[in-house]
Amino acid sequence: MAGKFIVIGERIHCISPVIRAAMETKDPEPILKRAKEQIDAGAAYLDVNIGPAEKTGEDLMKWAVKLLQDNFDNVPLCLDTANKKAIEAGISVYNRARGKPIVNSADAGDRIGYIDLAAANDAIVIALCSKEGVPSDNDERMGYCQEMLERGMGQGMEAEDLWFDPLFLVIKGMQDKQKDVLDFIKQLSDMGFNSTGGLSNVSNMMPKHIRPIMDSTMIAMTINQGLTSAIVNPCDLRLMEAVKSADIIMNHSLYADSYLEL
Amino acid sequence: MAGKFIVIGERIHCISPVIRAAMETKDPEPILKRAKEQIDAGAAYLDVNIGPAEKTGEDLMKWAVKLLQDNFDNVPLCLDTANKKAIEAGISVYNRARGKPIVNSADAGDRIGYIDLAAANDAIVIALCSKEGVPSDNDERMGYCQEMLERGMGQGMEAEDLWFDPLFLVIKGMQDKQKDVLDFIKQLSDMGFNSTGGLSNVSNMMPKHIRPIMDSTMIAMTINQGLTSAIVNPCDLRLMEAVKSADIIMNHSLYADSYLEL
Repeated sequence: MAGKFIVIGERIHCISPVIRAAMETKDPEPILKRAKEQIDAGAAYLDVNIGPAEKTGEDLMKWAVKLLQDNFDNVPLCLDTANKKAIEAGISVYNRARGKPIVNSADAGDRIGYIDLAAANDAIVIALCSKEGVPSDNDERMGYCQEMLERGMGQGMEAEDLWFDPLFLVIKGMQDKQKDVLDFIKQLSDMGFNSTGGLSNVSNMMPKHIRPIMDSTMIAMTINQGLTSAIVNPCDLRLMEAVKSADIIMNHSLYADSYLEL
Repeated sequence: MAGKFIVIGERIHCISPVIRAAMETKDPEPILKRAKEQIDAGAAYLDVNIGPAEKTGEDLMKWAVKLLQDNFDNVPLCLDTANKKAIEAGISVYNRARGKPIVNSADAGDRIGYIDLAAANDAIVIALCSKEGVPSDNDERMGYCQEMLERGMGQGMEAEDLWFDPLFLVIKGMQDKQKDVLDFIKQLSDMGFNSTGGLSNVSNMMPKHIRPIMDSTMIAMTINQGLTSAIVNPCDLRLMEAVKSADIIMNHSLYADSYLEL
């Protein structure tokens, strides 16, 4: 039985006014509330996006890591910022009891250094198969994948610690590219790689009532293709129901009549 | 752009007491009501299951075919009974303006003659990849598929008129076989074959509130694998939302914000 699909909760993000204010004032409550909601809904990891955080990032990331891990039994975290020193600061106080930290994210272009950062700190890294903008096809995606894999393994990383991101594309505008993304996930899976990505980008700009319908359909299809993880909103009930059901169909978890409550 | 996924509505079935009574008394109203509900919900074909109907089958099937096609603009039908003469009687009055009739169903065992029937009547046939009980693996499924294909083509059928059914299996009891079914659908798709099946069998015996969740997840995964059709309940809104969304993702139909209403 292969591993269950890993949901990385995306809702601790400074783009949210509530979270931004809490980060600015170091107010624990709004952050703890969102963390609990996501963990209760089935998130395995929590993403912590503090934005660019050029000046205060190191201190802020350390505070957030300790806050979340102290309150939620060392919940594993995905550290998400353009400030590399802030990621290293977060890792310096990170407890690995329930899993390595994830560095979010490297790409094959300007952010290739995030792989070095992950290698130096024995972390997982999300490796976006892109250099500048949208890859034109899957050969290009696979080229970036290989570049990043070599870079990581050259520094002693295990291949399983690079979680490749195919770059999910918005359907409104790039409908005819969705099949490419699905095919690429299958290629990654056939090669034995872990994978992840910001899946709900597919429904970006769609009417609000449609997004959970489209996202839940897409996530079932991606799990079928072998995607191993996604950065999503675990409080989207329909999405999580699809994840749990797909895990049953793929034989990643055992069926019980109560499986949706687990 | 490949064809849209074809939903065959399963609800005109003599297992329903209301439909059975309507068939016994030739009362049009309950049958027309269920037909309209299914067509409005997005069914492309309607299955008409009259049961064994050993004595009255020919007359009954002719009546049902005319009733449905007269009232719903020659809606295409799937003729479903163990009485072969009743299927031929139905085809004798069937209007092909919107598609060939479907014969439901042949298998590689006792029901192999249904392929001959379809060949003799220029019909589509559902060809269950099974001989006696559940195939033990996909090699066995593919063997039956080849047998039935040869039988049909030997009598002048086009390969596209054999719609192969992988035999969907119940998760409660055969959870570890679901991946086989999905893999087999991909094999059929890679060979260019049409496919169908009684998909909701996967959620058989599950609590009622779970079935639409499991079925909608499964149908997204099967469409991703290349399934071209299924015999399902189109009045299951969640299922149809998944079908329509999967058709968008696969680029089988063009996205519009109103796509769920189309």
